[in-house]
Amino acid sequence: MKRIMNAPGTLVAESLAGFVAAHEDLVAFGGEGRFVRRRALVPGKVALISGGGAGHEPLHCGFIGQGMLDAACTGHVFTSPTPDQILAAMDETDTGAGCLLVVKNYDGDVMNFEMAAEMAAGRHRVEMVVVEDDAASGPSVRSRGRRGVAGTVVVEKILGAAAERGDDLSSLKALGEGLSGRMRSMGVALRGVTVPDNARETFALGPEEMEIGVGIHGEPGLYRARMAGADEIVRLICEPILDQLGPLASARPLLIVNGFGGTPPIELHLAYGLARRYLAGRGVAPARSLVGTFVTSLDMAGLSVTLALLSEAEFALWCAPVATPVLAW
Amino acid sequence: MKRIMNAPGTLVAESLAGFVAAHEDLVAFGGEGRFVRRRALVPGKVALISGGGAGHEPLHCGFIGQGMLDAACTGHVFTSPTPDQILAAMDETDTGAGCLLVVKNYDGDVMNFEMAAEMAAGRHRVEMVVVEDDAASGPSVRSRGRRGVAGTVVVEKILGAAAERGDDLSSLKALGEGLSGRMRSMGVALRGVTVPDNARETFALGPEEMEIGVGIHGEPGLYRARMAGADEIVRLICEPILDQLGPLASARPLLIVNGFGGTPPIELHLAYGLARRYLAGRGVAPARSLVGTFVTSLDMAGLSVTLALLSEAEFALWCAPVATPVLAW
Repeated sequence: MKRIMNAPGTLVAESLAGFVAAHEDLVAFGGEGRFVRRRALVPGKVALISGGGAGHEPLHCGFIGQGMLDAACTGHVFTSPTPDQILAAMDETDTGAGCLLVVKNYDGDVMNFEMAAEMAAGRHRVEMVVVEDDAASGPSVRSRGRRGVAGTVVVEKILGAAAERGDDLSSLKALGEGLSGRMRSMGVALRGVTVPDNARETFALGPEEMEIGVGIHGEPGLYRARMAGADEIVRLICEPILDQLGPLASARPLLIVNGFGGTPPIELHLAYGLARRYLAGRGVAPARSLVGTFVTSLDMAGLSVTLALLSEAEFALWCAPVATPVLAW
Repeated sequence: MKRIMNAPGTLVAESLAGFVAAHEDLVAFGGEGRFVRRRALVPGKVALISGGGAGHEPLHCGFIGQGMLDAACTGHVFTSPTPDQILAAMDETDTGAGCLLVVKNYDGDVMNFEMAAEMAAGRHRVEMVVVEDDAASGPSVRSRGRRGVAGTVVVEKILGAAAERGDDLSSLKALGEGLSGRMRSMGVALRGVTVPDNARETFALGPEEMEIGVGIHGEPGLYRARMAGADEIVRLICEPILDQLGPLASARPLLIVNGFGGTPPIELHLAYGLARRYLAGRGVAPARSLVGTFVTSLDMAGLSVTLALLSEAEFALWCAPVATPVLAW
């Protein structure tokens, strides 16, 4: 798989350098380049810090800014950042109200963020929210529970807005944990992804195959199926989401269609329209939507659908002003 | 090439329907579905109308809204909209100050927009600006002159801001025509593009090949080269841009790195960082930048770089507030 890069070993650093240069009005490197931070911190606000492996851009760095994150730590491709990076981010962005760590549910990420929190004991008050929204990896499939995927954007946006208005650390933790059970995502891939370091495709799909229930690190999906029309694809990924979410009493459903990196806008919007129609057939009308490329798996072709059943209060936070490299409203 | 769609014949209509549904706060269908328009028109403002073939999303519909377009007409994939569509858009969005048509320089587009302008004679005052920014298709290569590619976004943004502040039709035309000579783009493809209707790849590249100087409809490039590192790729596409723009006396260079649809953010930001370094080596420092997926060629892998040498006045218009599905600042 060809890729615009100089070498696997410099891909992440060179991409981050470009990202920071492109958005220098909003973000800057912190900790001698070990993380990216908001240029202007807000004294007395809880510091919201996230991070994870590279290869998921614009997550997380694209969501740094007013109303979302204060800092993001990036590891190598599909590899957790180190505790050292995370601690450096806490040291530089904690302005007195403590730090909330937003972590996707993967062993390496959870371990390294936990280790950083332990190292910070006595220096920072720290809480952690683990995002677990993937409908394809429930406890019956995976011992560690659901993976964190595109729903991470929902958690970062809603907690970011709440932190910005002055919510304290324990309220933010409770808010984040409350979201997990009312949010599910599911993805489909039309083409696997090649990790730059080993140049081997993580799973190979034939010209008439697709993979349903994929993760964002080239993990195989729940099952492989014959390539189908978009209506059928959308049904295959939306059905488990709705089935798992159970009774849809929520006032405010939020619908996200997310491209995995190799999928163009024409297909994302088409899938959004069909997802909306499928949801309507099951009695769900999104109160607000987001369509685009937010949580990628390098250049994997495919997309995910996320449905979050927000309360009125959470919905107001979703709609609160935000100014980041990716989201602005 | 697999694609998330139901059928080639419904791809464009279903995608547009999804787009309008996703952004219903800003846009709506006009003329019984023949075009997409700004939901709230501004009486007495020149109507800014653009359009072209589908397959370039988010161009043009993604740039409808305050500070940019009033309407956009979409044809079939890589095919001009019909004069009938364009006339309908004029009829519905001309609020008295006339219509300015922004057209990319392709025979079909220019012909159909010209025909629509003729049909509108006596009903609307109409002017046209033809965008010609592609550095790979100068008059020596192509009888009709340079193709319009990603620089179209620059023209739509700057004319949009000027229309919004009340500039009249002839001033807008002069402003748009003044931009063309100070703006160049050049693209590279790592993988060709398959047109849904015939399922045939427009140009096929081997695993070690890239195509330099490509257009946005699967046109072959200026030449094929052996796949190279990102520094070399960036040099190959930035060098002709700078050479053609000539003396860089401009106060305000604008740099755009645009993905063609199949290129993930990690690669776009990497290319942006390297483009910026290459420009610095030639004495050019961008005053502002834009990195993302704006003008696509379906899911083609690759990207283009655009450099626009703006005057102070044009730069102020670039920075003016904008609220569209894609750009918001």
